[in-house]
Parts: sequence; structure tokens; C-alpha cells
Amino acid sequence: MNKFSKNQLQRYPVYLKFFRGLQEKGVVEISSPKIANELGYSEEQIRKDLQAISDEPGRPKRGRDVARVIENLESFLGYRENSNAVLIGAGHLGAALLNYTKFVDMGLTIVAAFDTDPTKIGQIVGGKTVYPISEFEKRLPEFNARIAIICVPEAFAQDCVDMAIKSGCVGIWNFAPGHLNVPANVVVENVNLASSFAVLSHRLGNLK
Amino acid sequence: MNKFSKNQLQRYPVYLKFFRGLQEKGVVEISSPKIANELGYSEEQIRKDLQAISDEPGRPKRGRDVARVIENLESFLGYRENSNAVLIGAGHLGAALLNYTKFVDMGLTIVAAFDTDPTKIGQIVGGKTVYPISEFEKRLPEFNARIAIICVPEAFAQDCVDMAIKSGCVGIWNFAPGHLNVPANVVVENVNLASSFAVLSHRLGNLK
Repeated sequence: MNKFSKNQLQRYPVYLKFFRGLQEKGVVEISSPKIANELGYSEEQIRKDLQAISDEPGRPKRGRDVARVIENLESFLGYRENSNAVLIGAGHLGAALLNYTKFVDMGLTIVAAFDTDPTKIGQIVGGKTVYPISEFEKRLPEFNARIAIICVPEAFAQDCVDMAIKSGCVGIWNFAPGHLNVPANVVVENVNLASSFAVLSHRLGNLK
Repeated sequence: MNKFSKNQLQRYPVYLKFFRGLQEKGVVEISSPKIANELGYSEEQIRKDLQAISDEPGRPKRGRDVARVIENLESFLGYRENSNAVLIGAGHLGAALLNYTKFVDMGLTIVAAFDTDPTKIGQIVGGKTVYPISEFEKRLPEFNARIAIICVPEAFAQDCVDMAIKSGCVGIWNFAPGHLNVPANVVVENVNLASSFAVLSHRLGNLK
């Protein structure tokens, strides 16, 4: 069903950031060995990754057209269409995401936040209003959002996700620890800090 | 050098959380098919993952001893030794991490924060003092920390990492976007929100 592995998908934003940096410096063409040298991926991987999303046949021995690659990456990643999202849980992490200014470069706009805490409701955080979570289902249509960003404590995450899906969200970006159960037509992507730290911790252990 | 893939390493905290949950519910033994059913991994993957960190031979057809698996997972993940870390950049995201109470379950203690902002210096955030970044090199030894958590804007990330490594840090947990250059004896783990969102966005696109 999906010909791109998760690892491969995760590399594309890294390429995009790199190519945008080249464009800012006025570079119009670059070779695979140079990309390999800068990003630490193998030349073969770079060729495979970029060919998979390219709209033109490979041109061996020629450099890559920076503007063209950016166009391919942006359209593959969906950065040219904008996605609206709502955020649930305006605590410390939620507030950090509401204040993060780089999401717009990824085609992501957080349009509103929801919380249960009366001291947060009605506040403006990062330019977005915090609404009572009891109004979620009623308000979702006005925001035209199909992604819910989950920043609530683990114990509430599944309930919030169930509510978001029932209200029409089809994408869940989950920052709460723990496993979520969702129907097959809903996509979940977890940002799992414990998993990320496990990689660091294990590799540090190997260095001892 | 490293027989565990990144994907595999990232699954171990998920197992640990699951097995700890079983233990809380009083479950003492569980079969691979049941684990598979709950976590959505294949039975073969579960057997392979758990065998790789086990201190006993496989016991086909027998359930897994929950307490034993937890012990193996905790010791493999280094959760039984505590790691001290310092955090650089006490902005919104940095403050969220300083206030996060679950790191201690992962054997991670953030002992201090550093920032350049005079309004932040001297504040206590999540119970930790924010020190001026100019004192980083001088103060690092007193914190016995070998991990630096990078939460500064991208433009400052490389300079902060260079400073942290020069001062003796060997592990970098990087929350800033963009590629970092480090010597071969330093481990970097990136939490890249753009990469995570790319996976969500692409899979949502496939659902259309």
C-alpha cells in the first residue's frame, strides 16, 4: 500500500531544508556526492530517495537542479497544500507547539486549541484561542481541520482521540506517551520522547 | 558496530510501558500472540525483539514472565542507571521539557538549564535553575551531566552543540531543526518535528 518506508519519509524534510538552504545561497545545481558529503547519507540512498519523488528521468553524471528538487519535495510532502489542525491540551508542551513558528513552512496551521482547565479557556496562546473541550465537536467544522494534535496527559489521550475521530478528524499527531487505538481509516503519528531517548541512551551506552 | 536498528530500539520503550501496565494489573505471564494483538506488531517481530535482549533461552509455547521482561528491558534501556542532562534554551519548548515529569521513569534527570535571556536567567523552571550560558563550561562539571538537550533556535544550535562537546558532553538530544556536525565520538539523536509531520502528512495524502 505504501511504497515509502517511515525512515525514507523522514529524510525528505531534511533534504528540503538542505535544498532551501542551497537556494538561499544562490546555488542552482548540486551533485549527489556533494549532498552525500553534507548530509551523511550514502550517494546511492540519495539517488534512490530523490528519484522516487522526481518528475523527470535520472540524469547520470549531471547535477541536480535545486529549484526543481525543491518543487518535487514540496509537492511530495504536501507542503504546497495547507493543512489545518486543532490542538488538544494547552499545557506546557501544547503551548510550546502553539508558539512554534516553523509549522507554516511545513504547510501546517494550528487554528485553535482546546483544554479543560478554566484558567486556560479563553486565553490566547501563540495567537490561537483556547476553547473549552466541551465545544470541540460543535466547533471543529468552523476550523476546517482534519488533524488533531494531542498534548494531553497519557490518561486522557485515548478519550480525546476518540472524540476527535468522532468529530471528523482523520489524522492524529500524538505527543502523549502510550499506544492509541484508532480505526483503520485514521492515521496516527506518534512523537514518542521515550523512544527517541532510548536510541540516544543505548548508543551512549555502547560508547562507554 | 550496532546490531539494533533505530526502529527496533524505538520499540523497546513501547514494550516497557506495555509490560509495566500489565504488572500494575497483576498479570504475571503473557503470550506473544496477546502482545501482538495489543501492540499491533507481528508475533515474529515480538519474539525477535524480546529474544535479542533476554538473559534466558527462548521457551517456545510458554508465556513470557512479565517481571523478567521488565527487568531485561530496563537494564537494556539503561533505565536502571540514571543519566544527568543539562538543557540549553529555556524557551517554550525548553520549559515544556523542564516541566515534564516522566523523564525520571526513563532514567533521565535534567539537572539545570542555560539561556542567554536576562529575563530567564536565575528563574526556576520545572524545579531547575536557569543559568547564564556564559557559565556553561565552568558549571558543567558540578552537574555530572554528559547529555546536553538542545532547545535553542536553529541558528544557534551548532554553536551550542560545539560548546557542549568542548565542555565534555558526549550525548546530544537535539530538538532544533537542521543538521548538526559532531565528532565521531559524540552521539546525536534528533527529535525532528518536520520529519514526524511528513510521515503523517504523506499517509493522510494516501487516504484521500
